[in-house]
Amino acid sequence: MLFHRVAILGVGLVGASFALALREKSLCKAISGFGRNEHNLRRARQQGMIDDYRMDAGSACQDADLVVLATPVGVFKALGRDIGSALKPGVIVTDVGSVKGRLVYDLEASMPEGAYYVGSHPIAGGDRSGIDDARADLFHDARCIITPTEHSDAGAVQKIASLWEGIGSRVESMDPVRHDQIYAAVSHLPHIMAYALVNIAHAFDSECIDYAGPGFKDTTRIALSMPEIWRDIAILNKDNLIKLIDGLRENLGKIEKMLVSEDAAGIEREFSESRQLRMRLSDGSRRGHDERAGSSLADSGG
Amino acid sequence: MLFHRVAILGVGLVGASFALALREKSLCKAISGFGRNEHNLRRARQQGMIDDYRMDAGSACQDADLVVLATPVGVFKALGRDIGSALKPGVIVTDVGSVKGRLVYDLEASMPEGAYYVGSHPIAGGDRSGIDDARADLFHDARCIITPTEHSDAGAVQKIASLWEGIGSRVESMDPVRHDQIYAAVSHLPHIMAYALVNIAHAFDSECIDYAGPGFKDTTRIALSMPEIWRDIAILNKDNLIKLIDGLRENLGKIEKMLVSEDAAGIEREFSESRQLRMRLSDGSRRGHDERAGSSLADSGG
Repeated sequence: MLFHRVAILGVGLVGASFALALREKSLCKAISGFGRNEHNLRRARQQGMIDDYRMDAGSACQDADLVVLATPVGVFKALGRDIGSALKPGVIVTDVGSVKGRLVYDLEASMPEGAYYVGSHPIAGGDRSGIDDARADLFHDARCIITPTEHSDAGAVQKIASLWEGIGSRVESMDPVRHDQIYAAVSHLPHIMAYALVNIAHAFDSECIDYAGPGFKDTTRIALSMPEIWRDIAILNKDNLIKLIDGLRENLGKIEKMLVSEDAAGIEREFSESRQLRMRLSDGSRRGHDERAGSSLADSGG
Repeated sequence: MLFHRVAILGVGLVGASFALALREKSLCKAISGFGRNEHNLRRARQQGMIDDYRMDAGSACQDADLVVLATPVGVFKALGRDIGSALKPGVIVTDVGSVKGRLVYDLEASMPEGAYYVGSHPIAGGDRSGIDDARADLFHDARCIITPTEHSDAGAVQKIASLWEGIGSRVESMDPVRHDQIYAAVSHLPHIMAYALVNIAHAFDSECIDYAGPGFKDTTRIALSMPEIWRDIAILNKDNLIKLIDGLRENLGKIEKMLVSEDAAGIEREFSESRQLRMRLSDGSRRGHDERAGSSLADSGG
């Protein structure tokens, strides 16, 4: 039993899955929920995910020795302020947000005396949202980045690491600023690109999406993600994203010039470099092979 | 028995799968192969995909009543010239290329008297290539676009449609120019974007790809496709692609401005429009749900 009373602020896919995982591993005695939508909270209670709920965040945190911020990241700072006076000494506050960086320092600074903040980013969830998809093993075998700072309490960091390990995650500690650089490139920019690709394809030909095959579906699957979540992430990580978007626009401009001049060797070099890098990533079973298509792929080999 | 002797020019994934499908459905008597790589052709013969092979395209087409161009599309025009004098009267020539448009008219014009060209684009293959992944059911239940023109011979068009239907494809007839507009948006641009995303992520942070999760993998899976194939497709469909890349760069510039000004409502509107469009596409079983992650997705719902 790591904790007695846990408060989960934001009972969606990740918050509810976290609650289920805590229960399954008997890592706490009781769980309170907080959220904007009472109907959803009532359902979460009926399904045994949480024991009770409150419609204001401070009350949900009363007597909690662990508080988890699981709303869209844009709300974290306001939540930090709202719960400050309700936090009891010794409480540990963490979050499950996809952005760390300055936000981690801001949250840390907003903690009252005796409350310890340690940032977490479980790499789990995908494009799903909502408690209907919640499951106790969501974090099992998933990576979880924790982002302690030079001010972090060593005992609290240890306890947060044990918590994620307790529900099966592979914990890795990382500097919050470095975290945002890495995830801007491998997660936040891909979301912006996926959203953009769908919009551009539709604007170019309003019927084309009916002809989309598995290649387009794979490339744009994350455009199914919740806009309000990715809006917040994009804004909070805007400095990295602006640099990346500049780089991407420049790269696309280069490709465009190569197309204009029919620079076959240059285009092939760009594509080959990319393919080599992409081959480093295992695709597991390369799922979807059977259904995937996207285009004919006649090989000149023979 | 639709055909007697079939010549397959380019024995890769699509060419070899086509050969296997023809055999399985007994749609021809004999199959000749042509390609650059004799080792590959020998293996294809040993595995019973083709009956014989030739190292020049013209000889492979001798006595053929069906010729299938299955090399990278960049080679089609030269192949059309090379085989012209070897084609016998009544032969039907088709291809499996991802670009149609002007190429279809060029190929059509290059046919000698009595030879009939009808373009095909089977939507099958994905990011695989090579005969080791070939299979007789590659085209089964897959869409196949055929692109007859105002000059096409009605009997040849009917025979090509019957051929694809005979191996299980869902045949749809489309204007060649319209074909290229649609597939530029839903296939060719996504490939360019996937290649660009991998290169940009790596240039931004050379270690970030190690942190890539299922979201990045999905978004960039088609960057595993063969560069020489996509180089040719990109160049042959450059007019559409240049317009699309311009539109994409403009859209990314708009998003960038919204990030600078923290225009949360504007960003959410862009993402929501995209998500609504993307939801039109079924993801089948939404495969990969269990493993997929990409980012935490805390829902504010509760």
